[in-house]
Amino acid sequence: MDTNRKVILNSRSTGIPQAHNFKIIDAQIPTIATGEMLIRNHFLSVEPAMRGWISDAGNYSNPVKVGEVMRSLASGEIVESRHADFQVGQFVTGWFGWQEFSAITPSDIIQKTTYQEMRHSLGIFGINGISAYFALIDIGRPSPGETVVISTAAGAVGSLAGQIAKIVGCRTIGITGTSEKATTCIDVYGYDAAIVYHAEDVGARIKELCPNGVNIYFDNTAGAISDAVLPHLAVKGRVVVCGTASISQWDDWPVGPRVERHLLVKRARMEGFLYFDYIHRSDEAVEQLRTWLAEGQLNYREDILNGIQHCPDAIAGLYRGENRGKRLIELA
Amino acid sequence: MDTNRKVILNSRSTGIPQAHNFKIIDAQIPTIATGEMLIRNHFLSVEPAMRGWISDAGNYSNPVKVGEVMRSLASGEIVESRHADFQVGQFVTGWFGWQEFSAITPSDIIQKTTYQEMRHSLGIFGINGISAYFALIDIGRPSPGETVVISTAAGAVGSLAGQIAKIVGCRTIGITGTSEKATTCIDVYGYDAAIVYHAEDVGARIKELCPNGVNIYFDNTAGAISDAVLPHLAVKGRVVVCGTASISQWDDWPVGPRVERHLLVKRARMEGFLYFDYIHRSDEAVEQLRTWLAEGQLNYREDILNGIQHCPDAIAGLYRGENRGKRLIELA
Repeated sequence: MDTNRKVILNSRSTGIPQAHNFKIIDAQIPTIATGEMLIRNHFLSVEPAMRGWISDAGNYSNPVKVGEVMRSLASGEIVESRHADFQVGQFVTGWFGWQEFSAITPSDIIQKTTYQEMRHSLGIFGINGISAYFALIDIGRPSPGETVVISTAAGAVGSLAGQIAKIVGCRTIGITGTSEKATTCIDVYGYDAAIVYHAEDVGARIKELCPNGVNIYFDNTAGAISDAVLPHLAVKGRVVVCGTASISQWDDWPVGPRVERHLLVKRARMEGFLYFDYIHRSDEAVEQLRTWLAEGQLNYREDILNGIQHCPDAIAGLYRGENRGKRLIELA
Repeated sequence: MDTNRKVILNSRSTGIPQAHNFKIIDAQIPTIATGEMLIRNHFLSVEPAMRGWISDAGNYSNPVKVGEVMRSLASGEIVESRHADFQVGQFVTGWFGWQEFSAITPSDIIQKTTYQEMRHSLGIFGINGISAYFALIDIGRPSPGETVVISTAAGAVGSLAGQIAKIVGCRTIGITGTSEKATTCIDVYGYDAAIVYHAEDVGARIKELCPNGVNIYFDNTAGAISDAVLPHLAVKGRVVVCGTASISQWDDWPVGPRVERHLLVKRARMEGFLYFDYIHRSDEAVEQLRTWLAEGQLNYREDILNGIQHCPDAIAGLYRGENRGKRLIELA
């Protein structure tokens, strides 16, 4: 194999990035300089957050430039090394982009991994598991007996957050898009109840299911779903803002119900969470998640697409709700 | 004096309560039962929060009923006692209502006070000082060198919050309604800068004055002022929702810019504060405030109206911005 196929950003999108916003090109396999390594990527990650990474709207990181390889977490094998600390044959996970081969420095690496854990290092032991763990535990601060409501309840982050909430003794209510996913929520992820937002009155169901109010709302959607949950917050309720999947663009702030009075009356807290702030504490979460997974306390699903040709449409697919678990691209 | 003049709620208001929503009536001085005391009130308090206390909208306390005496903090002297723990001649502060005489039980009392401190027990050593202290320290969690923006900066709570923020080493920017109050903010309350929201572009001024962003926004208004401040939050910024003075009604949630995405991107926290949650910790705040006041580190102003006839219009007056400091009604 002489070429390095890579997915570059072809044009910006103001809303959800579609296949036409990307282009697959053939490039040369990079030559590495002193201090660098060449990675052959085995798995590329697909995140809802990628929408933000290519947006010009105010964000937490500089946007990917048009013509650049798409920013992505990936895991793969070191096939060439000009760095004394890293040897050929080691497996690593980090910011390697949507491409077959990546020339990287140690600062691009988030963690060392193994052949067996490459996939998990992009999901349950990576961005999704670490996000679910710290967003729930550190920002949500659950206590046993509390009621936790989670949107995108069957998603890569939501399904883990829901299960962690159960493990620490909470009651869990999932909000999801289809009755098939609602069944998965209950049967696979152990939610006490699930609400199908396309088919049910979310506010009425929350009221019925949470007579003492919602102690923690783990929000992956914002928008109309949040508007239906927020009026039912309990006193001292917490809203963990982990994702904003339901809002199609943020360049001008969209309008919605004002939360100030409600936060005051309920003495509630609404707080944003970002994975990047917790990367340095990854081990803490991964150790706990690995134990729970080994004990059979966590169920974890993956949605694997084979071949880099799936990349361009993969983000749009997440927003269409077509994945069943953490979406990865496996390279041949 | 044989009669007890009292101010009763005459009708509800959906917005800011006006004089016609109240009625002054002459009643008999109450007879007290075993376990009760009769208080002769010297000072009645006037709070912006009273708007909420008479509103049917979802709130943190049951609304005052039409025909009932208006709920209020007050301070006065025990003139008759049928309770072993309280003696005639003692001064107390508590929930005594807008009236000349109140028959109360110990649960109505918040604190014992003195003749000299009766006024302060309704302001700097009472609801306003305790709110400013805990809302800033406990919810805002200021660190030296941070920038704190405060709305209703010259008000009873805002002016104290601004001064406490300076004492703990922050830079303070006040937002207020008139240039006269802006001058007071700087000259009397030590703000580093003041913005007149009626005359200036609040967002542009905040941007100019806070090049590194706003670490704490101490929000007493909500609404358009908040909308102008929020885009300038620093990473890990905090919004203390202490009051919502600028929004005229909450029965249907008014709409405004959605904050979710911004809270996520900034990893910011927005949290409601309510005085009632901190009454049990009053001593902690009052001890500190008394020391600062004695050391000359705090300036504190009062706006005293003489006679119960001022009560009906007194809340509306706060919202018209006519007071210069903590508003009290002094009884003859």
